[in-house]
Amino acid sequence: MTSSQQSPPELRSIRTAELLAVGSELTAGETRDTNGGELARALSLQGVSVRRIIALPDDLALVTASFAEALSTVDIVVSTGGLGPTPDDLTREAVSVAIGEVPEVDADQQAWLRDLFARRGMPLSELNLKQAWLIPSATAIPNPNGTAPGWWVDRPDGRVAILLPGPPREMRPMWREWVVPRLRERGLGDGRLVQTLRTYGIGESHVAELLGEPMLRAANPVVATYARADWLDVRISAVDERDAGGRIVRSAREVLETAEVAVRDTLGGHVLAEGETSWADLVAAAAAGAGVRFAVVEAGTRGALGALLCDVPALERAIAHGPGVARDVSAWPVESEAIEIARAAGVEVGLSLVAHSDGTQTVLRMAVAAPANGWSRDLDLRLFQHGDHGRFRAGVAAAAFLVEVLGEEH
Amino acid sequence: MTSSQQSPPELRSIRTAELLAVGSELTAGETRDTNGGELARALSLQGVSVRRIIALPDDLALVTASFAEALSTVDIVVSTGGLGPTPDDLTREAVSVAIGEVPEVDADQQAWLRDLFARRGMPLSELNLKQAWLIPSATAIPNPNGTAPGWWVDRPDGRVAILLPGPPREMRPMWREWVVPRLRERGLGDGRLVQTLRTYGIGESHVAELLGEPMLRAANPVVATYARADWLDVRISAVDERDAGGRIVRSAREVLETAEVAVRDTLGGHVLAEGETSWADLVAAAAAGAGVRFAVVEAGTRGALGALLCDVPALERAIAHGPGVARDVSAWPVESEAIEIARAAGVEVGLSLVAHSDGTQTVLRMAVAAPANGWSRDLDLRLFQHGDHGRFRAGVAAAAFLVEVLGEEH
Repeated sequence: MTSSQQSPPELRSIRTAELLAVGSELTAGETRDTNGGELARALSLQGVSVRRIIALPDDLALVTASFAEALSTVDIVVSTGGLGPTPDDLTREAVSVAIGEVPEVDADQQAWLRDLFARRGMPLSELNLKQAWLIPSATAIPNPNGTAPGWWVDRPDGRVAILLPGPPREMRPMWREWVVPRLRERGLGDGRLVQTLRTYGIGESHVAELLGEPMLRAANPVVATYARADWLDVRISAVDERDAGGRIVRSAREVLETAEVAVRDTLGGHVLAEGETSWADLVAAAAAGAGVRFAVVEAGTRGALGALLCDVPALERAIAHGPGVARDVSAWPVESEAIEIARAAGVEVGLSLVAHSDGTQTVLRMAVAAPANGWSRDLDLRLFQHGDHGRFRAGVAAAAFLVEVLGEEH
Repeated sequence: MTSSQQSPPELRSIRTAELLAVGSELTAGETRDTNGGELARALSLQGVSVRRIIALPDDLALVTASFAEALSTVDIVVSTGGLGPTPDDLTREAVSVAIGEVPEVDADQQAWLRDLFARRGMPLSELNLKQAWLIPSATAIPNPNGTAPGWWVDRPDGRVAILLPGPPREMRPMWREWVVPRLRERGLGDGRLVQTLRTYGIGESHVAELLGEPMLRAANPVVATYARADWLDVRISAVDERDAGGRIVRSAREVLETAEVAVRDTLGGHVLAEGETSWADLVAAAAAGAGVRFAVVEAGTRGALGALLCDVPALERAIAHGPGVARDVSAWPVESEAIEIARAAGVEVGLSLVAHSDGTQTVLRMAVAAPANGWSRDLDLRLFQHGDHGRFRAGVAAAAFLVEVLGEEH
C-alpha cells in the first residue's frame, strides 16, 4: 500500500528541520559527517531553520527516539546513513517503530533491485532484500548511484521524514533532484533570500566597525560575517518586511538589494566576489579576460599556490620547491624567476612566490611578469598567520595579486 | 567559591559521553564542526562510548535542555563553542541554568583577563567580563591560545560537564593538556586498546572475505574496516576477556595482539602502516632509508602527487602540468621525464606520473628513475575511480610505487 492510498497529508509549510546522521563510525569519530552541514546549508539558504544536527550510533532505541522526538517538534526530519543491507543498518527499522508501521518487501522495489544486481552480474542476497522494504506511509526515493532507495515518509500532520543514504555521491543527487522539488511543492521556508559577498584584504573586526552595530544587529536583513581561510564572507539574509497588519511593505528582494548596495558601498574594493566563487574561479576569469596562459613557481609554501589553482585551465605549469627552504625572502630573485618560468613553460605570464613562515608570521615576496610584453610587478607582504595557515594565506595573497595585475595590464 | 570547597564529587568512572557543538553558524551550515568528530575519536580510542554528537544553535533553551539531558544520561558532556564575549555566546549561561547555579565574576579570572588584554595593548570591555565568570561547581580551564577560559563543572553524582572554546587551536591544547589528565584520574574508559592497520592495494569486500565473518562479528576484539580515500584501515579494538565470575582470562593486550597477528598473517604485504601514518610519512621514511632526495613531475593529476607529498623533506621539487592535458597516456615518455626531473633538480631519484581520467576510470603510467645509478622502473595501472577521486588515487598509487621501489633498489 502506498501513501497515495491514504488520506492526503495536511498541508504544512516547511519552516523547521532536524538532521540525523546515522552510523557508529560517526560517534566513534572514525568518519566525519559532511551530510549534516551540507543539508543544513541547503535548507538555511531556503529559509528553513535547522534546530539540531545529530550524529547517532547504530542503536535502534536511540535512532527511533530521535525520529519520534523530531516528528513531534519540527516540520521535517532528514536522516542520512543506515540504509545498507546489514543488520547494523537500522534507519528504516527505527522510523517504522517511531511511527508504528511494519516494513514489508515492496514488489516494485524488489524488481528494481533484482534488475540492478543482474545488470552488474552480482547475486542478490537475502540481506539486500531489506533495501526493497517500504511501509504504508513511505514512497521510495530512487537512488541513481547506489542500491538503497531512500524513503519519503508522510505523516498525517503534514510533517515529513526523509531517509537518504550516507554516501554523499548517492545522497546529493537524490536530495537535489527528487526531494527538494517535492519540498518546494509543500512550501519550503520563509521566502528568505540570501546573498554572500566575499571580501579580501580587510580584517573581520574592521569590517564590523565599518558596517556598524545597527546593521549587524538588525533582524531583517540579518547581516553576519564569516572569517574563512580564503575569504571574509559577509552574508546578507532577507525576508519580506511586513507592517503590523501583516502586509508586505518591502519585498525580500528590495530588503536584500538595499543591504547589498550598502555593504558594497562601505567595503568598496575589498568585495571581490559573491556566493561560492573560489580564487581559482577569479584567476581563471582574469586570465581569460587578459587572453593569457600562465605558469607559477613557489618556494617556502609547500605548493599552496599550485594547490589553490590546480583546476584553472589557463595554468600551464606549477613548480613547487620542497619544504625546508629556509632562505632570505628579501633577497629572492622573484622577478627573474617569474620571467624564467613564463619562458620555460611557453606562456605569456609567469608568477614567482617565496614565503618564509616562522612561529608568529609569514613574510612573502612575489612577482608577476610578462616577458614578451616587457612588464613586471612585484609585491612584499607580511602576514600575521604562520605555519600551514600562513602558507595557505601566502598562496591566496599571490592569487589575489595575479588577479589584480591581470586586470590592470594590457 | 570554588568546587574544592564543596563536598568531593562521587567517584564515577567515565564510560559514556555526549558532545555538544554550540553555534548557529553550525546549524546554518555556514561552518562545519570538526571538534565533535575529533573529540569522539579521542574518547573512543580511550574506550569511552559516545552516545551522540549534537550541533546546536545559539538558543538558550535548547542548549540548556541539551546539558540537562546529557547530565542525566551519560558520564561526561563536553561542549565546544559559545564561550565568546557576545550575547550570542551563551554556553556558560545554559549550563548554569541546567544545574541551577548563578554565574559571578571570579576575581582571579578577571585579573588574568585584564592582564592578558593589557599585554596586548587592548582595552578590556564590559562584554569580555562574562569570560571571567564562574559558578560554584566550576573550575576554570586555562586557555593558552585565547581569551575565554573553559569550565570543568563537577556534579554531585560524579558526572562532569566540560565547556571548551570553539576554535580548534584553542580547544585542542586545553583538551589534551588539562582535561584528559584529569579525566584519566577519574578512570577513563574501559581499558580498551585500539590498533589500526593501514592497508593498500586490496578492496574492502576482499578484505572482509579474507578476514571472515567470525572475526568481523566478534564482540571482543571488535574488528572493523574503514575505506578511506588513501587507505583501507582495519581497526582492532580489544578489552580484557573475563570469565563468568568476572576474572580476567586474557588481558586486552593479549586479545589485541593475537588479533593483530591474525590480520597481518591474512593480509600479508597489503599492510603497509599503522595508526595515522600518512603516505608522506612512508615516502619520507623510504627516501631517508635509501639516503636519497627526489623530485616529481606529473600530468593529468592536477598536482595530486605534489599535494600528497608536500611535507616530505626529501622532496626537492614538484612540477605539475596544468589541467586539460588530454593525452595518450600509453605514449607518455615517463622514463625519460623521470630521468630529466632528477637531473634538473639535482637529486638522485626522479618520478614521473601521467594520468588520464574519463567518466568511469583513470589510466596511469609512471616511472621512477635513478639516472646516476642507471636504473629505472615503470608501472601501468587502471583505477576504477575517476575525476578528482581518480586523480587523488593516482597520486597515492605513485607514492606507493615510489615507496616500493626505494625499498628494493640499492
